[in-house]
Amino acid sequence: MSKSKRLIYLPLGGAGEVGMNAYVYGYGEAGRERLILVDLGVTFPDMDSSPGVDLILPDMSWLIENRDRLEAIFITHAHEDHVGAVGRFPDLLEVPVYARAFTANIARGKLEEQGLDPRIVRTVSPWPETVTAGPFTVGFVPVSHSIPESAGLVIDSPGGRLVHSGDFKIDHTPVVGEPFDEGAWEEIGKVGVKALTCDSTNVFSRHEGRSEAELETQIEELFSRAKGLVVATTFASNVARLKTLAEAGERAGRSICLMGRAMLRMIEASVETGVLSGFPRVVSPEEAQSIPRENLMLLVTGSQGERRAASAQLARGKYNGMELKEGDLFLFSSKTIPGNERGVIRIMNQLSEKGVDVVDENSGFYHVSGHANRPDLLKMHQLVNPQMVIPMHGEHRMLCEHVKLAKENRRDGIVAVNGTMIDLSGNAPTVAEYIETGRVYLDGSVQIGALDGIVRDRIRMALNGHVIVTLILDEQDEPLGEPWCESMGLPETGRSRAPLVEILEADLGQFLGRASEKTLADDDKIEQELKRIVRRVAQDEIGKKPEVTVITSRLA
Amino acid sequence: MSKSKRLIYLPLGGAGEVGMNAYVYGYGEAGRERLILVDLGVTFPDMDSSPGVDLILPDMSWLIENRDRLEAIFITHAHEDHVGAVGRFPDLLEVPVYARAFTANIARGKLEEQGLDPRIVRTVSPWPETVTAGPFTVGFVPVSHSIPESAGLVIDSPGGRLVHSGDFKIDHTPVVGEPFDEGAWEEIGKVGVKALTCDSTNVFSRHEGRSEAELETQIEELFSRAKGLVVATTFASNVARLKTLAEAGERAGRSICLMGRAMLRMIEASVETGVLSGFPRVVSPEEAQSIPRENLMLLVTGSQGERRAASAQLARGKYNGMELKEGDLFLFSSKTIPGNERGVIRIMNQLSEKGVDVVDENSGFYHVSGHANRPDLLKMHQLVNPQMVIPMHGEHRMLCEHVKLAKENRRDGIVAVNGTMIDLSGNAPTVAEYIETGRVYLDGSVQIGALDGIVRDRIRMALNGHVIVTLILDEQDEPLGEPWCESMGLPETGRSRAPLVEILEADLGQFLGRASEKTLADDDKIEQELKRIVRRVAQDEIGKKPEVTVITSRLA
Repeated sequence: MSKSKRLIYLPLGGAGEVGMNAYVYGYGEAGRERLILVDLGVTFPDMDSSPGVDLILPDMSWLIENRDRLEAIFITHAHEDHVGAVGRFPDLLEVPVYARAFTANIARGKLEEQGLDPRIVRTVSPWPETVTAGPFTVGFVPVSHSIPESAGLVIDSPGGRLVHSGDFKIDHTPVVGEPFDEGAWEEIGKVGVKALTCDSTNVFSRHEGRSEAELETQIEELFSRAKGLVVATTFASNVARLKTLAEAGERAGRSICLMGRAMLRMIEASVETGVLSGFPRVVSPEEAQSIPRENLMLLVTGSQGERRAASAQLARGKYNGMELKEGDLFLFSSKTIPGNERGVIRIMNQLSEKGVDVVDENSGFYHVSGHANRPDLLKMHQLVNPQMVIPMHGEHRMLCEHVKLAKENRRDGIVAVNGTMIDLSGNAPTVAEYIETGRVYLDGSVQIGALDGIVRDRIRMALNGHVIVTLILDEQDEPLGEPWCESMGLPETGRSRAPLVEILEADLGQFLGRASEKTLADDDKIEQELKRIVRRVAQDEIGKKPEVTVITSRLA
Repeated sequence: MSKSKRLIYLPLGGAGEVGMNAYVYGYGEAGRERLILVDLGVTFPDMDSSPGVDLILPDMSWLIENRDRLEAIFITHAHEDHVGAVGRFPDLLEVPVYARAFTANIARGKLEEQGLDPRIVRTVSPWPETVTAGPFTVGFVPVSHSIPESAGLVIDSPGGRLVHSGDFKIDHTPVVGEPFDEGAWEEIGKVGVKALTCDSTNVFSRHEGRSEAELETQIEELFSRAKGLVVATTFASNVARLKTLAEAGERAGRSICLMGRAMLRMIEASVETGVLSGFPRVVSPEEAQSIPRENLMLLVTGSQGERRAASAQLARGKYNGMELKEGDLFLFSSKTIPGNERGVIRIMNQLSEKGVDVVDENSGFYHVSGHANRPDLLKMHQLVNPQMVIPMHGEHRMLCEHVKLAKENRRDGIVAVNGTMIDLSGNAPTVAEYIETGRVYLDGSVQIGALDGIVRDRIRMALNGHVIVTLILDEQDEPLGEPWCESMGLPETGRSRAPLVEILEADLGQFLGRASEKTLADDDKIEQELKRIVRRVAQDEIGKKPEVTVITSRLA
């Protein structure tokens, strides 16, 4: 490696959080490195911190500014937190997007949805085949995970070899797709690997991970005991699980019916790309209606409690002509992602109220994780045998713990959160620079900054309610009639039992009646005073200080 | 029992949910039963369904209407979901409130906070002493739980004996308070019990519960390894845990400092009522500042991620002069209640960013539940040996599972959710009546109905933003100038890159310019049309349909 050139790593999303993965690697002279991007995913909003937002994207400003240096984008697998934002940054799409066939199929769909040219997505064959992108040669090494054709990347450059694990688990019997190939990774490691950028999701799970294939017997046993309709939900993209569930249903003498758009899309992609073979024949929702419930199984979307998904709709009432009732069985073959508990519990109880027997994954019988647990992470370190481990795909706590794990085993490591550019050129990782990053909200059709104050205002209205004061002043700055108040999201009456708006109007009217000419001539002063009065009076009447908008109209 | 009299059970809160417990028992002629109320608790709001709400209370309308039939209120223990609403329904407080000393202390505090007379709370001694309330004789039987002086109730009436388990676990070494007394319950059961109303929280936990005393060794070992400051959080009311933590800290050579109002209040109540003895000497936050960090332990509030509690403040920055740093240890000796995950995770990662080592209860070493697991529930059924089991304190799914458990063991049971009045007079439980119940929101200082639409409007503003349109019409119903738009919680610009409000104003102005005299004379019509235009234009510009308030002022 020329002394003036360096090898860098820069996470723009996914490091210090679980979600919206976006990792940059670069090689070249400092500040002029040629770059590749690995993954471009989204995070999902929640009511606590991002009400009304549709999707959360990583802030890609730095890469957009430096897009003349970008050589290619690589997508490791088709989960939304890795591929979901690929159609959201058209400025980055002047370079090819590389992915394996199944992932490419999904990525092309994302581009088409946004009216972009899907042909920039190029399908690659797995390792040992490689793709060249500027100074980099990149190979896709199949790994087991919870979606077909996941890959870790081998990233070779004049600065040395890097391995980007992608999301992975060590599964030798993954039901769909290639088993985890320890030999291949060992071989890759033999050349000498500078750094392993590694999945950290399950670093706190102390036991070895379990194989997808372990679920088969338990699920089959559960279904064979069922007397009524059987419904099962899992992540639509967990094609192996869908297969396990469908086969168990088939063996229990049931016809399989898929419900939910995402699930149909995933099965379609799997069939189109040949990753799925031997999936039981499915019946349409129309056909399903004429099949006796004891001979039917529904595979549905909505394992995370999403309000519009099939599970939620079945819990509330009819969906696609089907209605659940006493004696039916509903299996959640999925883990609830932290933050989604309320929605999932709501659905479980709605189902229970219908008399449905709800089974979740707490027993461990009906779900296994798609991520490597602590001992499996250590195994991966040992196979790849890198100089240093750089944890990614995890909350801050997970990254720290993962570095600890590496160091306990005498390997260097560094916690690098979003925006931390790491220089990998030396024998130890060093921080080269801090880049400004953050989150961008896709809100309706507009991208807004997470710190723009827009969402903050929404949260304030939700917490405090909103009072609108309208005031008309004539040509002489005299109030024309009384000020007018409207409220939204506030009780109509409070302490004194008279309507809140009337009490507000009276107090505001009194203030204006006494206000000086100077005050009445000054819009800002009026606004400030009226807001103050509204907050004080509301606090006294209803014990809340609402958001206030004052609209002063002057007749010219 | 006279043929015309009946024994009834009516949950008004807590059955079909975890929270806001309120259970009515009655004996007498149908519709004229004399009543007692067991517990009067709250539930906590969340941003998803109840933004801005301060507390959720059970709807007690039915009992308030029938308050001339109410004989007494009994509080089983001092958790907020059992005692929290005691000061919120003054109409019910014309009868005595009975509780054991610790619970009574907390209940009196609640009444004083609301300016009510605390003397109506009467301290009772434990079983075999009893209290008479109309046709009922009620005894408080000590049970182990996660707060001092929890009790199950023995409720005798001419209609037979009932047992109300309260929240309980079977713990023979509970660290603070009385061990679970199997002999006493067996004795109580011997007389013949009609019904056991029973805690259902942990019915899905298949293993026997563990004792509070089991934690001691593990916690001590953890603390003895710590090099910097040690901080531990748990529920403030879990006095036994506080004692375990404090003693482990003391043995590790640390001074103990309590932080957070709720924790001080609980320790105070424990000391005042004599339930806590041998708690290590504590130092004040002022003293703590001069103690080397390796000799100090903080016990703090906020285990559920509450934004204003000590844990959250320490995670964000300084609190009471203390600041955490690299090498400190923070122990969550508590389970995260479903729905609180986001808040807790946020704090854990903020702490991790400071370099603090965060330890949670996932290992099982540092927390045990306060509720009876499935085998312990069965044990309770067997000890009390009731004719029927009526599950309470649980979500619908838990109540169902609990009935299943009873029936599997050849005992009758019934799922009775809030509002279901059960007649217990016969040999099997039957539904006597359905009473309208629900939730009341304490919002600031006002109680509002959950279905009043106020909170719904807040949620809508949070999801959709808010546009306010002001229009002035002169004496001839002609618009005076252009309509004026303001927005809150919406992006300033969208598709066409011009300010959204200007585009809205232009389109609204155009509409008004063309509107008929008839339209302009009709406020409702104007409002309807302007709202329609705002939603359509906003959808086109920013991809969202905001909430719209139209304010039409007419110069008279």
